[in-house]
Amino acid sequence: MTADPRLSINQATIKYADLATALRVTKDAGVQAIGLWREPVNEVGLDTAAKMLADSGLRFSTHCRGGFFTLPEGPERTAALDDNRRAIEETATLAAAGAEGSTAVLVLVAGGLPDGSRDLIGARERVRDAIGALADDAKAAGVTLAIEPLHPMYASDRAVVSTLGQALDIAADFDAAVVGAAVDTFHIWWDPQVFEQIERAGREGRIATYQVCDWKTPFPADVLLSRHYMGDGVIDFGSLTRAVIATGYDRDIEVEIFNADIWSDDPATVVARTAASFAETITPHLDR
Amino acid sequence: MTADPRLSINQATIKYADLATALRVTKDAGVQAIGLWREPVNEVGLDTAAKMLADSGLRFSTHCRGGFFTLPEGPERTAALDDNRRAIEETATLAAAGAEGSTAVLVLVAGGLPDGSRDLIGARERVRDAIGALADDAKAAGVTLAIEPLHPMYASDRAVVSTLGQALDIAADFDAAVVGAAVDTFHIWWDPQVFEQIERAGREGRIATYQVCDWKTPFPADVLLSRHYMGDGVIDFGSLTRAVIATGYDRDIEVEIFNADIWSDDPATVVARTAASFAETITPHLDR
Repeated sequence: MTADPRLSINQATIKYADLATALRVTKDAGVQAIGLWREPVNEVGLDTAAKMLADSGLRFSTHCRGGFFTLPEGPERTAALDDNRRAIEETATLAAAGAEGSTAVLVLVAGGLPDGSRDLIGARERVRDAIGALADDAKAAGVTLAIEPLHPMYASDRAVVSTLGQALDIAADFDAAVVGAAVDTFHIWWDPQVFEQIERAGREGRIATYQVCDWKTPFPADVLLSRHYMGDGVIDFGSLTRAVIATGYDRDIEVEIFNADIWSDDPATVVARTAASFAETITPHLDR
Repeated sequence: MTADPRLSINQATIKYADLATALRVTKDAGVQAIGLWREPVNEVGLDTAAKMLADSGLRFSTHCRGGFFTLPEGPERTAALDDNRRAIEETATLAAAGAEGSTAVLVLVAGGLPDGSRDLIGARERVRDAIGALADDAKAAGVTLAIEPLHPMYASDRAVVSTLGQALDIAADFDAAVVGAAVDTFHIWWDPQVFEQIERAGREGRIATYQVCDWKTPFPADVLLSRHYMGDGVIDFGSLTRAVIATGYDRDIEVEIFNADIWSDDPATVVARTAASFAETITPHLDR
């Protein structure tokens, strides 16, 4: 079978595949695009990774991930910002190496409350400040920073940005080409404001990437790994996908699944299963 | 020590205590109010429970719980609505039996998606319809239905009402004396709109009950039991409590903790610990 031309495999879905394997199984499945993670890229070095990506002929959809912006002033925060600047450069290099239609998008996970802190408002303000500190670098590199709201169950330890509306409020201070949002079904499907905020995100030109995977309970012991193939859970991908497409979103659509069972499966099998799941749940909703 | 006069022990905090024990340990700790659950009340029968409550001299703050409103039309939904009518009667009877200052508040947990359904919007509409079906009964009984938004991590299997704003939007169709909201720190602390929605809830006369407990990660295997004594987690009780008090809220404040370790502890110890935690985290913020 041929995979949907808009499907992009986020490398985290096949977490234990190295970069060469990830590129190969994605390509072999007839998938046209891939989203990469920093660790496997840096394992081979950026230049080598860029060459491997170019040789694959795949489009590059996003780089994961920057962020960790909630630390108070100090050397740790400075180091985090410097690391984000390297991530911006990586994103630009990989987007240039990918096939035509690649997008230079760096996904940002804000970070949780610093140890011992209960100051959620302060942590959220530091996210805005950090993005302000990076915006000029991103603009110069032609990279869009995609603020990813994470599900509120991660608000204390992973990301103090919890809704698409909140991400857009932060992004509003910046040029839409420089700061946008990641729209991930897993994180926002429950939000009573999800449709109005997707419409708003589109109107404001902020949908930097659309990512899909499913939600199912009960959770595994590690709630970070509670993501599933589309169709295995309760998310209505039709209404969400149509809402995103209605805004004019025309980029690749990534599947990013954190799931221990899927990670332990053969990468080629996972990509094939992902493509089948995408064809069934997403493809029917991509015509405008 | 004397417990804060506004503290109310929600019976779920000492889940394995029967009604007699719950009333006794609450009273013995110098606590003035209690919130009851239907099961232990019905274990002794409503009339007996009302007499026991009256004899205790405690105020009655809420009855838990009604709801389960997301079922589609059919006998199960009809049975659920009938059961809610019984819960309304229980609430009125217990509030009349409690000491002066008791409040007739029935807490409603909306219910999750029906088995096999992905229709979140439809489920949310059925919640509104169900409340409409019960509003006259509640009004006649002098009972306030308190819609409780639950944390979005419970949106699929427990409650499709996920934010205070959403609860208030549903309540807006009804008289404020009949339909309000439960403001529980555990469920709403993460919400970027929490302060504006608390202010709105107060302005609209909808804060039927204010409940407190803490949020901490990592979660236990059952995420339903991830609630903690105030001060043991990351919630800033100062800002939230001051926001609630600023609206003019003058009722009891319940502590409702679902936690397997706390449940396995001695009830008198739990009540004492709860009172101490309340004195440290809530009491300093109760002056307007």
